[in-house]
Amino acid sequence: MGEYPRAWIVSVGNELLIGRTVNTNAAWLGSRLTLLGFDVERVVTVPDRVEDIAEEVERALGRARVVITTGGLGPTYDDVTLEGVARALGRGLKLHPRALEMVRSFYSRRGLGLTEDRVKMAMLPEGAEPLDNPVGAAPGAVVEARGTLVASLPGVPREMEAMFDRSLRPLLEGIAPPGAVVECGLTVRGVPESSLAPYIKRASRVSRMVYVKSHPQGSELGEPVVRVRVLARGATEEEARAEALRALEHVRRGVEELGGIISEEDSC
Amino acid sequence: MGEYPRAWIVSVGNELLIGRTVNTNAAWLGSRLTLLGFDVERVVTVPDRVEDIAEEVERALGRARVVITTGGLGPTYDDVTLEGVARALGRGLKLHPRALEMVRSFYSRRGLGLTEDRVKMAMLPEGAEPLDNPVGAAPGAVVEARGTLVASLPGVPREMEAMFDRSLRPLLEGIAPPGAVVECGLTVRGVPESSLAPYIKRASRVSRMVYVKSHPQGSELGEPVVRVRVLARGATEEEARAEALRALEHVRRGVEELGGIISEEDSC
Repeated sequence: MGEYPRAWIVSVGNELLIGRTVNTNAAWLGSRLTLLGFDVERVVTVPDRVEDIAEEVERALGRARVVITTGGLGPTYDDVTLEGVARALGRGLKLHPRALEMVRSFYSRRGLGLTEDRVKMAMLPEGAEPLDNPVGAAPGAVVEARGTLVASLPGVPREMEAMFDRSLRPLLEGIAPPGAVVECGLTVRGVPESSLAPYIKRASRVSRMVYVKSHPQGSELGEPVVRVRVLARGATEEEARAEALRALEHVRRGVEELGGIISEEDSC
Repeated sequence: MGEYPRAWIVSVGNELLIGRTVNTNAAWLGSRLTLLGFDVERVVTVPDRVEDIAEEVERALGRARVVITTGGLGPTYDDVTLEGVARALGRGLKLHPRALEMVRSFYSRRGLGLTEDRVKMAMLPEGAEPLDNPVGAAPGAVVEARGTLVASLPGVPREMEAMFDRSLRPLLEGIAPPGAVVECGLTVRGVPESSLAPYIKRASRVSRMVYVKSHPQGSELGEPVVRVRVLARGATEEEARAEALRALEHVRRGVEELGGIISEEDSC
């Protein structure tokens, strides 16, 4: 897909590793980041342990343009994401006055004071700035080091999404490449994926700006159903769309030659 | 959670990174591996690129007891998982006679012959053995190196699950630790997570065999709802259950002292 700024997602939480929770946050962020023009290179899920969080964030520093962590910002003993980020940066945690004010005002509006566990949510890595949480108590954090923007969002999807759209998105738009990304595809019936394979390969070689992928939906044989999706980039939306359609042309030819039918089209 | 054999999951596929597909496979495997007694330490999602797959599998070698890859076993140009595994092991790919026979018989039962793209599915890392695919065409593969079992499963959930349960599970049971894992929990209403935090911390310190986590379901204030889950290990199921209940006792005390109510219990 050419050279686009790389993004990593570090998902923090044992509940994800033991399969109690499905990582929908990563899919939501992956889609948002892709449409902003980032090349999502990794999603790494780690336990709620400082050293594991630090290991993965450190790996991304200087390599990805953006790292987004989710989860582990709350008040409980195992909410240690910002400690992990701080360690990756070789910095300490420090009480941030504006973050503390956010936490204090969140609780005081409900007639509650600060406790040790609540104050902990305002301890940010040195040099980080808080991100406003429009929905919950814990502020997010954003800090730049070695050319990488590290942003930490909460794990509760509603909070994560609100914080991304309101506070992080504007920052990312400032560093995203110009241009447009489109996605489209079609569904093929009656042709096994393995027969369609050479046409998909040809479609993928149309240019470095397109990415073509087939997803078998039914069985390989019998009643095969294959969804083909194309992601394309361009200087403008029009250009991206033209690239995508050029790639899909190869797939259409394959379907025709192999005697399949196109049962559905998602236009781009 | 004490010292349990570590497991890594490497999920292969751009569709996961760009958020088109939610990684339900990782949750399914994470749950299975946990209940078998493994400590799932990482889920890493990588693009369909040989070097990225190789990088992550290599990182797990000698560190995790088991690595399971999903996806990228099919016939298309971007199905390169086994090439990535081979590179991580410093080995080549080799046509495996039994794997080829699996592929050949899958297609011949439907009156189809072998093509270059179909034969590719029988190219396994040197030293690997094929895993039977009861549902689809592509065999899986399993190989051991540096004390790590590397198993490659398909990405289509139905195929992945069938292959795991039929072919991989018996191998894993052979290396899983003896003992039992149980999971239980309760739902607390009327207490903010930040107030419950010290009790959860105490619960988590009951022993190294329990893992306690709170999941805020509603808002932190107003009408707070917090699900508390406990995962516990023991030599027997009875022992594991006793540990879990001991931990939950601290949470119950907190709820009582804070004037909340327990609205739901999942027994273990």
